[in-house]
Amino acid sequence: MGSFRGRILRVATFGESHGPGLGVVVEGVPAGLELSQPQIQRELDKRRPGTSPQVSPRREPDQVEILSGLAEGKTLGTPIAMLVRNQDARSKDYGELAEVFRPGHADYTYWCKYGTPPQPGGGRASGRETLARVAAGAVARVMLEPLGIRFAAYTVGVGQVRAKRLDLEFAMTHPLRLADPDLAEDMVNGIDKVRKAGDSIGGVVELVVDNVPPGLGEPVFDKLDALLGGAMFSIGGVKGVEIGAGFASASRRGSDNNDQMGPDGFLSNHAGGILGGISSGQQIVMRLAVKPTPSISREQSSQDLQGRSAIISIKGRHDPCLCPRVAPVAEAMAALVIADAWLMQQALERSRQ
Amino acid sequence: MGSFRGRILRVATFGESHGPGLGVVVEGVPAGLELSQPQIQRELDKRRPGTSPQVSPRREPDQVEILSGLAEGKTLGTPIAMLVRNQDARSKDYGELAEVFRPGHADYTYWCKYGTPPQPGGGRASGRETLARVAAGAVARVMLEPLGIRFAAYTVGVGQVRAKRLDLEFAMTHPLRLADPDLAEDMVNGIDKVRKAGDSIGGVVELVVDNVPPGLGEPVFDKLDALLGGAMFSIGGVKGVEIGAGFASASRRGSDNNDQMGPDGFLSNHAGGILGGISSGQQIVMRLAVKPTPSISREQSSQDLQGRSAIISIKGRHDPCLCPRVAPVAEAMAALVIADAWLMQQALERSRQ
Amino acid sequence: MGSFRGRILRVATFGESHGPGLGVVVEGVPAGLELSQPQIQRELDKRRPGTSPQVSPRREPDQVEILSGLAEGKTLGTPIAMLVRNQDARSKDYGELAEVFRPGHADYTYWCKYGTPPQPGGGRASGRETLARVAAGAVARVMLEPLGIRFAAYTVGVGQVRAKRLDLEFAMTHPLRLADPDLAEDMVNGIDKVRKAGDSIGGVVELVVDNVPPGLGEPVFDKLDALLGGAMFSIGGVKGVEIGAGFASASRRGSDNNDQMGPDGFLSNHAGGILGGISSGQQIVMRLAVKPTPSISREQSSQDLQGRSAIISIKGRHDPCLCPRVAPVAEAMAALVIADAWLMQQALERSRQ
Amino acid sequence: MGSFRGRILRVATFGESHGPGLGVVVEGVPAGLELSQPQIQRELDKRRPGTSPQVSPRREPDQVEILSGLAEGKTLGTPIAMLVRNQDARSKDYGELAEVFRPGHADYTYWCKYGTPPQPGGGRASGRETLARVAAGAVARVMLEPLGIRFAAYTVGVGQVRAKRLDLEFAMTHPLRLADPDLAEDMVNGIDKVRKAGDSIGGVVELVVDNVPPGLGEPVFDKLDALLGGAMFSIGGVKGVEIGAGFASASRRGSDNNDQMGPDGFLSNHAGGILGGISSGQQIVMRLAVKPTPSISREQSSQDLQGRSAIISIKGRHDPCLCPRVAPVAEAMAALVIADAWLMQQALERSRQ
Repeated sequence: MGSFRGRILRVATFGESHGPGLGVVVEGVPAGLELSQPQIQRELDKRRPGTSPQVSPRREPDQVEILSGLAEGKTLGTPIAMLVRNQDARSKDYGELAEVFRPGHADYTYWCKYGTPPQPGGGRASGRETLARVAAGAVARVMLEPLGIRFAAYTVGVGQVRAKRLDLEFAMTHPLRLADPDLAEDMVNGIDKVRKAGDSIGGVVELVVDNVPPGLGEPVFDKLDALLGGAMFSIGGVKGVEIGAGFASASRRGSDNNDQMGPDGFLSNHAGGILGGISSGQQIVMRLAVKPTPSISREQSSQDLQGRSAIISIKGRHDPCLCPRVAPVAEAMAALVIADAWLMQQALERSRQ
Repeated sequence: MGSFRGRILRVATFGESHGPGLGVVVEGVPAGLELSQPQIQRELDKRRPGTSPQVSPRREPDQVEILSGLAEGKTLGTPIAMLVRNQDARSKDYGELAEVFRPGHADYTYWCKYGTPPQPGGGRASGRETLARVAAGAVARVMLEPLGIRFAAYTVGVGQVRAKRLDLEFAMTHPLRLADPDLAEDMVNGIDKVRKAGDSIGGVVELVVDNVPPGLGEPVFDKLDALLGGAMFSIGGVKGVEIGAGFASASRRGSDNNDQMGPDGFLSNHAGGILGGISSGQQIVMRLAVKPTPSISREQSSQDLQGRSAIISIKGRHDPCLCPRVAPVAEAMAALVIADAWLMQQALERSRQ
Repeated sequence: MGSFRGRILRVATFGESHGPGLGVVVEGVPAGLELSQPQIQRELDKRRPGTSPQVSPRREPDQVEILSGLAEGKTLGTPIAMLVRNQDARSKDYGELAEVFRPGHADYTYWCKYGTPPQPGGGRASGRETLARVAAGAVARVMLEPLGIRFAAYTVGVGQVRAKRLDLEFAMTHPLRLADPDLAEDMVNGIDKVRKAGDSIGGVVELVVDNVPPGLGEPVFDKLDALLGGAMFSIGGVKGVEIGAGFASASRRGSDNNDQMGPDGFLSNHAGGILGGISSGQQIVMRLAVKPTPSISREQSSQDLQGRSAIISIKGRHDPCLCPRVAPVAEAMAALVIADAWLMQQALERSRQ
Repeated sequence: MGSFRGRILRVATFGESHGPGLGVVVEGVPAGLELSQPQIQRELDKRRPGTSPQVSPRREPDQVEILSGLAEGKTLGTPIAMLVRNQDARSKDYGELAEVFRPGHADYTYWCKYGTPPQPGGGRASGRETLARVAAGAVARVMLEPLGIRFAAYTVGVGQVRAKRLDLEFAMTHPLRLADPDLAEDMVNGIDKVRKAGDSIGGVVELVVDNVPPGLGEPVFDKLDALLGGAMFSIGGVKGVEIGAGFASASRRGSDNNDQMGPDGFLSNHAGGILGGISSGQQIVMRLAVKPTPSISREQSSQDLQGRSAIISIKGRHDPCLCPRVAPVAEAMAALVIADAWLMQQALERSRQ
């Protein structure tokens, strides 16, 4: 399925990498919100490749068209549909792979599930699918902006190297969204090295959300961290998610890990902004483990559709490190989750009065 | 809310720690399945405290009653409701805390969300809530048993110590579900030490699911890892989740991390049994970071409902390490997710024929 | 399934007529609402049989127990579970039918769907199932009461006789909820006549909802009339539903049927309080066609489970006219739909500000 | 919202009458189904105006484009998005009304709900919205065709005249879908008469579904008649829905109304193909009361946005009778409901084996 099913905000995405286009329908956005194509386009441009040697040179204009839900620059309260046409689809590069399952890709599992052979460019499993999420997330961000709720995701790890400090402005303008200016050169070099070796490299993306009001989320199954965690795992290539102290808290004692309160509020934020599934008003902090890009030109052993052994070397244009691709999608997914939780809380708060 | 909303399997839980009881309604279970109270009770007993000095001595019979959905030992296809009455609720221990937010607990965020003061024993936020999940999960397990799909979760880390090998039989009979017989004594000693110091300790739980057929899960938002990941984060105390190689894959190269295929299938399982959101037929492997129990008797600084500074020392019966409590719930949540994905796939497969 | 799935309000019912009990879990009720067992019990008592010769003499105390979601007389914002134990289940009356499909009942279709033989008393298909709906509806009514939103359903037709005027106070205290005091005796006599003949009779129930604020409902699939209409059809025995002028509007001209506006608002209410799927602020008016009770003692031809022809005469306690049973359930279902639409609108309105 | 939320089949529609276009995303369609643009276009053409003096002369090509979910003439199992561009939007006709609420339209209620003034052509409330439903329904019909499940809706009443017999072939080729060849001229004359008087007329549409297998639907809230009934009420202009004997059953006795069984099955079909919410294998029969078109050129009194009294005469192109517009949408909605219920039943049946 292609749906994010919040309680109030609903998102249906569609599109394959080599079909006519990709898009999304967003329901549940209140009427009267100022919204325009450039606000969506700006977010889409952030995920656009082609801005550095370390990202794939594929150039797609990815112009978004808003098909519904707007009149005279304001939302109507009706579904907002957005469409991006596919243009630069060099199927030749992809075509030759169609008979062999690419290791680390969804080719084999799609074959098991749908009985369909690998689609050119990955079909629905292509990273281009995230375009529709970013467009939907842009709508959520516009909605949350007046509340001061802001989202930022950036690269804090490449291979073995981990960022030691964060310069948010640096990160947000760096083509790889690298967080630490001191280590940026090291990280770029690390990526270059694997790229030249026909290989790829994993990394870590950190996501922060500022100014989330306390009280968002539900206490049991729909904990805010459960919704955010699930949303992060829905991004291709994410193999681990932690919130606040995360895996480090497994090694800690309660007396160290609990966030005590002083007269002015919490004295620490090991919880990462969520307690018992509900936002505490502190900054939400998550980190995502991103696997190395599965498309590599080095030879790998695999099988073809008939189950025969085959050697595969994946040509074409691929990012050696997925982190700068994952970061904008993480922001978008977080925006959808927070926007829906915020809308729900409005209903419950207002009905209490 | 208290609902797990699968596409076919739906679960509504209810109950507070000090109210009349806890329970669950499970919808979507096919008719004709053999099911009996002892099968549910057996799973509930696994999460029962009181079997070791390292777990809380609170003793609750937790007898489950099946209220509907069964006749003559078989499911009717109608909702299955199950109820566990609360009995051993020593409210005195809990009562005195009612005016001060307990650090690391949901008291403060519930106050923000609902405007209700801390409930005795945690109310809805109590770990007793998971009883209803385990009962629902037991139904899912009974449904999946004939397919050979099996779930096991056990403790692979306590504080700084990490298991080096897994003895599943040892783990499943150990009161703390410790996986590694060689390190079990070390881990027990570590827990005893913090317990005597009025403190608590975190840990890591590993979950494996065997014999999941390939093809389960959806490709975009409802990836099987997204559903499982979200389900794991919905368990109280879980601060991190990883699948397969997880955070280790962030440091790897693609050529190391991709699971290549030989003539007999996959040559490795770094993916943890899921590719592109869809099960591959390999073992599903996840690990959960569990924070140290927030209830500790050491003094902590906090605030009361009026925002005044307060010192709190939490008396009463508490597990120093949450891992053995988290493990059965992780199994139950995984069973619900897998059962629902399996049911969905039956619809799609059968309609293809 | 047993669920009403509103966007915010969610209701899961369970229970068979001859199992341990019936009940319901209600999620999405805001915290801080004053709610007590007697408020629920009062609504349940309204659907209780045994108050007139024209309704079945089966006497069930139907005492409801609130299992969760309340503390000190107020809702906690957590799921509210309610349970009614089955007591007076004379299975002997029902038992003998178990091998033959009762005409007009769900025995045959359940057999086709679930492969289960007819359950004693109808099992899940028994009218007792509506008990759980009425309990859930009672919660919704308590929530809507401060807004002045009120629900009333009453009998406006029995067999060929149709009420000519409405005396609401008379209707609400009449055991058959007959609306028209002038025709009540005629209607009672009509029912008595069929009862003595071992037969049953159909009727019409009218439902009105007062003081619904304008703006509730959604414009396309989830029109307020679609949700209400579907909810009414979910009540056993309802074979037709109309709103406002209903089927009479099919014979009208637009110039007669349109509700024009004068300086003080609408000049008529042929629409029945809903325009374009959204409440207009006028009274909501619906009418339900209720089929004659299928359980009759007259001999009918049928089949048994092996497909052999069989003659059946249904003994036991049955209402000759279902209208007084349908009316409280219609109120409850309307309350659930309106409450959910109202909660949704709070979210959208508040987020507009 | 714009969503049909089946359990497996999900449909999100979007679009306003005078925006860039209308469309739909359909999720849950199994992979491998043969599907092509002409199959969808054929259904869209059936709802196309301009084929008779009695229907509005507005001519729209309404060419549908399939944007995703297909490759080489087969479904991929991924979301199917379809788009129809708006072309013939003569906003001048509509524009002048923008300040006055049109009686019988949603202008006033949208204003209450969204705070938006009447949109040109009705915006989201325009009948053009149903285009997206028909496209989605076409997909469902293609899926159900191999099972022999067929849908037909036709006009059985115009004003006071009611069809006495059905000639399905006649109906399906008649521009007004009139069912009774003997009365067709009378009905056409009746419509012509009101049209020339600047007025409009109501009618009745009948819907039949053939070859629905027994066992579809759920027993309580999601009864098949509840889902179908709600779906019919979601069509603009529908003010009443009945199934089988419908309102006539309200006047009947049980001994007349029950469908008894002989050796070869049911002896009658007063139930209309559904018993206890579950399909019986008989023909499903429903009738819809359709109100007279609210857009009439006769003068009507109303209010403007400032609450001032105003006289309005609606110019432009409008059908004097909505029945031929409602019929294809009724078929489409029924197809969506039945397809989803059928998919669900596959899951439950297969998992029983």
